[in-house]
Amino acid sequence: MPGWKGCLASVDVGIGLLGYGTVGSSVNRMLVESADEIERATGHRLRVVRALVRDPEKRRPFPAGDGVLTSDFAALRDDPQVQIVAEVMGGVEPAGGYVRELLRAGKPVVSANKQLIARDGAELFAAASAAGVQLRFEASVCAAIPVVKVLRESLVVSNVHRVLGIVNGTTNFMLSNMERGGTYAEALAEAQALGYAEADPTDDVSGADAAAKMAILATVAFGSRVRFEDVECRGIDELEPAHVSAAAQLGMVVRLIGIATLVGEAWDVRVQPTLVDRAHPLAAVDGAFNAVMLQGDAIREITLEGPGAGGLETASAVVADLVSVVGTAGTGFLQNDACWRELERLPPDEWASPFYVHLEVSDRPGVLAHAASRLAAHDVSVAQLLQRLDGGAATLELVLHRAPLGQVSAALREMAAFPEVLRPPFVMPVITERGL
Amino acid sequence: MPGWKGCLASVDVGIGLLGYGTVGSSVNRMLVESADEIERATGHRLRVVRALVRDPEKRRPFPAGDGVLTSDFAALRDDPQVQIVAEVMGGVEPAGGYVRELLRAGKPVVSANKQLIARDGAELFAAASAAGVQLRFEASVCAAIPVVKVLRESLVVSNVHRVLGIVNGTTNFMLSNMERGGTYAEALAEAQALGYAEADPTDDVSGADAAAKMAILATVAFGSRVRFEDVECRGIDELEPAHVSAAAQLGMVVRLIGIATLVGEAWDVRVQPTLVDRAHPLAAVDGAFNAVMLQGDAIREITLEGPGAGGLETASAVVADLVSVVGTAGTGFLQNDACWRELERLPPDEWASPFYVHLEVSDRPGVLAHAASRLAAHDVSVAQLLQRLDGGAATLELVLHRAPLGQVSAALREMAAFPEVLRPPFVMPVITERGL
Repeated sequence: MPGWKGCLASVDVGIGLLGYGTVGSSVNRMLVESADEIERATGHRLRVVRALVRDPEKRRPFPAGDGVLTSDFAALRDDPQVQIVAEVMGGVEPAGGYVRELLRAGKPVVSANKQLIARDGAELFAAASAAGVQLRFEASVCAAIPVVKVLRESLVVSNVHRVLGIVNGTTNFMLSNMERGGTYAEALAEAQALGYAEADPTDDVSGADAAAKMAILATVAFGSRVRFEDVECRGIDELEPAHVSAAAQLGMVVRLIGIATLVGEAWDVRVQPTLVDRAHPLAAVDGAFNAVMLQGDAIREITLEGPGAGGLETASAVVADLVSVVGTAGTGFLQNDACWRELERLPPDEWASPFYVHLEVSDRPGVLAHAASRLAAHDVSVAQLLQRLDGGAATLELVLHRAPLGQVSAALREMAAFPEVLRPPFVMPVITERGL
Repeated sequence: MPGWKGCLASVDVGIGLLGYGTVGSSVNRMLVESADEIERATGHRLRVVRALVRDPEKRRPFPAGDGVLTSDFAALRDDPQVQIVAEVMGGVEPAGGYVRELLRAGKPVVSANKQLIARDGAELFAAASAAGVQLRFEASVCAAIPVVKVLRESLVVSNVHRVLGIVNGTTNFMLSNMERGGTYAEALAEAQALGYAEADPTDDVSGADAAAKMAILATVAFGSRVRFEDVECRGIDELEPAHVSAAAQLGMVVRLIGIATLVGEAWDVRVQPTLVDRAHPLAAVDGAFNAVMLQGDAIREITLEGPGAGGLETASAVVADLVSVVGTAGTGFLQNDACWRELERLPPDEWASPFYVHLEVSDRPGVLAHAASRLAAHDVSVAQLLQRLDGGAATLELVLHRAPLGQVSAALREMAAFPEVLRPPFVMPVITERGL
């Protein structure tokens, strides 16, 4: 970026926007209204000079300046005034193609696009690195919570080996609601009424949204490509009030947790309903908030919490990235570190954790002995057991000591084959102590 | 920093250390052991070339290289190889004088020194700005929790107007202990036995340590100088088990909270025992951990939590600052923003909050009416009231709606003058909802 690199006098930095919807127009508004704050921090005034839209004639809540809106991508790409581009249009294509072209043209890019980064992040990081420019993407995960910046800049020497995240506000709101006695359907209806959940909530309740975010966080934390498809994913749609109330009896809550683990030279990334001890900081994350806990050497664990969605929150993360690009321009910082090694995926059966098992059985002698013997046969030991009778049936709630998933699954398969077991066992990981 | 500014090839960056104790030697160890990670992120290898110590001959846990240790400050200051200096010696002098000289000599400085920054921060920021170099100080507040970086880099456009902090782990550990039934003396003894509290715990229990950290955070958040002496400060030494158990009855916990508030163009910064609603994220901060909640435009609130002390944690924050200095070198970033305006202190009586009052009175007719009338006379209304009889005496626990401190104090002074009031009322602010 010749012309302003290293220059302390105030020089305008031209910003291009791909998209000028809620987020794009908020970015422009923040750059205008906070121009003094930004100049104080960076020595530069950031000004939107081009914004790509479908229809430049449409009325906008915060209008762009004269001649700024264009429907011609080439006009933005080739404008020498455009020194950094913020991609706030969403969707994998054409956004991905545009970002590639811009990086190749030597323009740093800031992206708010979770789908794009989770799918094509590794290629885009490589393209940025080849061109010698930055690609930043804070807004693609948890909006204004600065988890990507903290991972990439503050924890460079911390060898982060585990990331725990509540990264979907909709399901966290629904689970907080179910904890207070609601059914899944009631919780979903309330989330929809309050605008937290879409009419089609599949992306949230299936865990897909959280999986995309965990893929990005794991890639950054471990430096190795983790794709959306690599994330083991279970949603909250199978959850029943019985699981939630059993959790309460055990002094825990149910949360949809993303867990990314580095085990030696292999990673495991999963999103699933998880029991969390009430004393654990993630249990305190209530309602639509998000939280990410980073565990590593020297830092022990650092947790960041805040609103994980919202137009203004997202725009504020985009502006923070633009400020950071300007603040590091020309130094070579963060051009080659987002995805620098190729680690293997841990075979899922080797992933170890304490687990919770919900088992519905006929109330006959020997059932408990059978269940216990299957667990023992696979070297899995029981930490806690609650038994509840209900007519001729019994419900067993088991908390198992830490064991590899493969051993637990094998034991459960054998139990499920037993005729007294009325339904397939329901299993969730358990998070108890800090640092586990 | 001519010679390596903007250079993408790997060039060694020479680091000077003021001090080579626990933190200093850990910084050296991390720079050596994580040299590859740092080079990947910054394009540079950071190497300790000089370290100022009293006795270069003393044996060290992680020895410095040959000829690195020196007892001569001028040898470090004048060494052209030293491009950035980390001050990890502690104490106001001679550390402060050294930092001033280094900044004047055009060397960026990273400081872990809470006392120095809380006392002389504004002058040092001005000196750094005049010299065109950065002064970073992440490690001076809450060790590895990256709150200074987040405030200065991620929240540039967020107009942070309130900072709530649990910034002293010792007292938080003691209060968590008292919550489980211990007395103040027992909690202190356990904190001392576990090494959380010094033999002389005054700095922690008086709130002085927390006040220094809040002065730094408020200065950065509001951009205006707040000195240690400007922080209204009350420790936890007057707390009684009765206050802690009353809190529990009200669904709250007692925490030593730093509260920095921007009201229009004036600030108020205070540290004091505070009632926190159990549902509030700060109530979940247990044991010796720290947490800081930042409230501002667009972001709503972002909370950072983690270990707020420890040699490795502090060293990791120092290394993160060194990495950030290298990553922003020559761009003009963060050279003039830490303390850029002069705001007034809010008259303490105008600071408004909900309050809790603990009142011990003789159990005679009319006492409650008197108390209520004094509050009403000062336009303070009661949100919640618990009354407990104990022989001929009664204890009143009042939660007052949000009101200016001056009005509450005036009412309490009038109550205290009433002969039926057996002891001076004990008052604490209350934190209930988010964003209040």
